[in-house]
Amino acid sequence: MSTKNQALIQFGGRVKLARKNKGLSQEELASKASLHRTYIGMIERAEKNITLINMMKIAKALDVKLIELLEFVDNGK
Amino acid sequence: MSTKNQALIQFGGRVKLARKNKGLSQEELASKASLHRTYIGMIERAEKNITLINMMKIAKALDVKLIELLEFVDNGK
Repeated sequence: MSTKNQALIQFGGRVKLARKNKGLSQEELASKASLHRTYIGMIERAEKNITLINMMKIAKALDVKLIELLEFVDNGK
Repeated sequence: MSTKNQALIQFGGRVKLARKNKGLSQEELASKASLHRTYIGMIERAEKNITLINMMKIAKALDVKLIELLEFVDNGK
């Protein structure tokens, strides 16, 4: 599996974990982040190469630092 | 100006600064990152909402941690 897919899988997994820690459904997170519900599902399943602005929306809606969702990137460098 | 554009402007500025610190032209950075030269210019001018995978390619090509290019995001939270 390419490191690129690995990154999307890791990012999606962290979003899912943070969402569950907050007790939010995908629908609730999507609404808080002004994104579509299916988009959140696709991000969690690593089906989308997420953009910077949507990452910021999701981090803000989860009330976590963007860096917390991306730590794996630099640890794997 | 929306915080979203502000994020792209900040990110583009950091890529440009890191590129210049390494003495690389846009063309050289693009080649190292396996991206198109014009794409690097668009990122530096905040004309593109960059994706996670391309951010990782650029950080790796610049030999900087992705977090260094994104610090402004969480400081502005």
